[in-house]
Amino acid sequence: MKFDFTTKVFEKEKISLSGTEEYIVRGGRHLFSLLPKAFDGIKTIGVIGWGSQGPAQAQNLRDSLEGTDIIVKVGLRSGSGSWKKAEEAGFTEASGTLGEMMQVVAEADLVILLISDAAQAKLYKKVFDAMKSGATLGLSHGFLLGYLDAIGEKPRADVNVIGVCPKGMGPSVRRLYVQGKSVNGAGINASFAVAQDVNGKATDYAIGWSVALGSPFSFMTTLEMEYRSDIFGERGILLGAVHGIVECLYREFQDQGMDAETAFRETVESVTGPISKTISHKGIRAVYEGLSDADKKKFEAAYSAAYYPNLEIHAECYDEVASGNEIRSVILAGDRFERFPFANIDNTPMWKVGEKVRAVRKEDEIPVNPVTAGVYVACMMSQIDLLAEKGHVYSEIVNESVIEAVDSLNPYMHYKGVAYMVDNCSTTARLGSRKWAPRFDYHMYQLALPKLRAGDAPDAQLMKKFLEHPVHDSVSVLAELRPSVDISLAGQ
Amino acid sequence: MKFDFTTKVFEKEKISLSGTEEYIVRGGRHLFSLLPKAFDGIKTIGVIGWGSQGPAQAQNLRDSLEGTDIIVKVGLRSGSGSWKKAEEAGFTEASGTLGEMMQVVAEADLVILLISDAAQAKLYKKVFDAMKSGATLGLSHGFLLGYLDAIGEKPRADVNVIGVCPKGMGPSVRRLYVQGKSVNGAGINASFAVAQDVNGKATDYAIGWSVALGSPFSFMTTLEMEYRSDIFGERGILLGAVHGIVECLYREFQDQGMDAETAFRETVESVTGPISKTISHKGIRAVYEGLSDADKKKFEAAYSAAYYPNLEIHAECYDEVASGNEIRSVILAGDRFERFPFANIDNTPMWKVGEKVRAVRKEDEIPVNPVTAGVYVACMMSQIDLLAEKGHVYSEIVNESVIEAVDSLNPYMHYKGVAYMVDNCSTTARLGSRKWAPRFDYHMYQLALPKLRAGDAPDAQLMKKFLEHPVHDSVSVLAELRPSVDISLAGQ
Repeated sequence: MKFDFTTKVFEKEKISLSGTEEYIVRGGRHLFSLLPKAFDGIKTIGVIGWGSQGPAQAQNLRDSLEGTDIIVKVGLRSGSGSWKKAEEAGFTEASGTLGEMMQVVAEADLVILLISDAAQAKLYKKVFDAMKSGATLGLSHGFLLGYLDAIGEKPRADVNVIGVCPKGMGPSVRRLYVQGKSVNGAGINASFAVAQDVNGKATDYAIGWSVALGSPFSFMTTLEMEYRSDIFGERGILLGAVHGIVECLYREFQDQGMDAETAFRETVESVTGPISKTISHKGIRAVYEGLSDADKKKFEAAYSAAYYPNLEIHAECYDEVASGNEIRSVILAGDRFERFPFANIDNTPMWKVGEKVRAVRKEDEIPVNPVTAGVYVACMMSQIDLLAEKGHVYSEIVNESVIEAVDSLNPYMHYKGVAYMVDNCSTTARLGSRKWAPRFDYHMYQLALPKLRAGDAPDAQLMKKFLEHPVHDSVSVLAELRPSVDISLAGQ
Repeated sequence: MKFDFTTKVFEKEKISLSGTEEYIVRGGRHLFSLLPKAFDGIKTIGVIGWGSQGPAQAQNLRDSLEGTDIIVKVGLRSGSGSWKKAEEAGFTEASGTLGEMMQVVAEADLVILLISDAAQAKLYKKVFDAMKSGATLGLSHGFLLGYLDAIGEKPRADVNVIGVCPKGMGPSVRRLYVQGKSVNGAGINASFAVAQDVNGKATDYAIGWSVALGSPFSFMTTLEMEYRSDIFGERGILLGAVHGIVECLYREFQDQGMDAETAFRETVESVTGPISKTISHKGIRAVYEGLSDADKKKFEAAYSAAYYPNLEIHAECYDEVASGNEIRSVILAGDRFERFPFANIDNTPMWKVGEKVRAVRKEDEIPVNPVTAGVYVACMMSQIDLLAEKGHVYSEIVNESVIEAVDSLNPYMHYKGVAYMVDNCSTTARLGSRKWAPRFDYHMYQLALPKLRAGDAPDAQLMKKFLEHPVHDSVSVLAELRPSVDISLAGQ
């Protein structure tokens, strides 16, 4: 077993995933009463930043800790444009739950650092300097440790360093938590990690934090494995790859004579609607099994054409992440933002068509296009295989390649298009998605689609491997650990 | 003046470029008689590798040194598939002009290392160990020094290290040299650099090498500036950007109702035909000046929409190169080639259409599409501006952004399509072009074309800057330094 841990407050549970074993901790609202014990010694939790994760985590923590003595206080730059938004969410200076960033860092017993990755790289020294000795640094992402590693530095030795990394973007973490008030157990899973434990309480701090966020279950990883799989995953099937794939198929289907609206339905709508729903409720293989015999053949051809080209780009992307190149790119991009701010990625004819299609959408009538399904599932499976090859545990693999896609992110694209999905994520994710979507697009267009156009026969060996893949078992086990709540965005 | 140098053999000449001054050395066949003097102490020149530059440089050097005592000997891996190709070009073991790589390295007084960048990174220690003390290492690219810098190492201290970097891919270097037998002065320009000079002869070795390759003129740089501008340039307008731009415009024009063949003519053919020819013969501004008043308006709108999005991607790309990320990517890719070899990039409908268009092409009837021209020229100008901002000398800027594009590379795309251009280049270039073409495509499609579609007015300030840009002066001066020979590929 890769990871084991000791908790004095929660119950750990051994699960079997694809022939491997892991420990997890189930969450749930009934555990909120244990939070004061888990947070023993923590009086103030500072949530620093108000980007993607900040609003979600600050509000979830506050709601989960209601009635306890623990204060959740948001820390922002003076004059930050987010100040007002935090106030609207009920964090105010008057109530002692909103303050200047470095002051909150100095006060807090647990500093949850949710400023952008580039900002973390710039400000980490100040943050370390401001923290109390014996306090705990909480990260929702291994990025900072990856960055410190790349420049040969380390965190302060006299603080705990823990990670709780929700497997979904901030808005989903909040949205499903709110839905979880009526459906106990709804929420986004999280991984947790303990990088430094100076007072022997770091593991329960981490699990407590994860439970308080509403995670249906939490599994252990290291911050290094986390940032690799996270930065890689969002460049892959979670954001970049799915964007590139639908752009390329949308063009291809029109080349073959479909009108634009039909092409949008057969690509984007197909992925974000029935394909995602099927994967979420019944697993990946069920997408294939639900097809007619004729469509199964088309799926097989598409899957066979797309698997290796997808694997190739995934392999490149993983190398770029593991080598630190992607982290360096994000830091470099930070220095260009003032001159070149983020631009809109969906101000194109395709996504305008999408608006029209969504306006008249009938959810039940969205088709499962077998070619789209084959290419999309091939991308997902090749990402899974690559992560397994690189030694990630199955909880992490399935969360970063399957659950986060179908339960957290695709619903955003389904609701309002690609920019709504991508640009609700972290800066690192937004940059990565912009970088890799075009790569997946060209790679599919140049390598996979020519085989489909030529009518190449499916690869029987590859299909067999898909149908018998051990990941299907993990997906089922992990599916049982959370209720199948479809994220509801309409009321936002 | 940035660079000055002393030559005991050739004549240096001061030229004025856009208000700055540089020294250059003019080439020409009448200087071949000076080569033995320039190569004083060099009896054997080892040309190592048979990729893009290898065949060109080995043959040009041999031809230029005909009748002297200096032997040009090709060094290849035993069992290399290139062995036969070298023999077909007249290099044979029997005549002592072909041998095992490391043996040739050990024999040679000047070791011209033209194996792929990834191979250089892998083999550099062996090469250094094998070289004679006091010998000279010749590079056609600063890559290896960039790599050594990135890993904190240095070349052996007891050898000269020089660079001669032709501003065109190998096949062009050979092709124009052959044409230069009838048109004296035809050839590809080169930059040269001296990184280590242990015997006081390194500068003349470098200039002699450049003259022997047939460079119409040679200008000085450092290997660091060279690899930055080179790796950056090929990711930009030379390969990646031009590919991405024509892909995106080809789609856009069809969206607006053009049929595929017309769209190919109005994009690829327009760039590789009349636009390249005009820039080569009359300069960049002449593309605009040659348009009708109505087309000038369209050019202005396209230029204005495309300039900043292009500048943004160029800025990102330069940062990626200067930070060492691109070099690391190339090395990482080297480890994946066995599993994922290079695939064809033009097995797509667009480039199939291109074959048909070329088959019935009438060179005089290729249109100058004003939108294509505006986007292409905006990309070229933004690359020029970025390089100037980063402190490159104008010889380097104009060669890496203008001359190499229109005189060396675009003719290859004109002759046989995009893969013929890209895949005749180095592995580093082929990788970079594959990486950045889709980025330029998406960026144009998402940021530039929406403005065009919306009918945004041209940016008068930007157009003024374009028309009065100092680079036009440099282009004219450098144009006079070489005859306008159109590269002829038909006989290949």
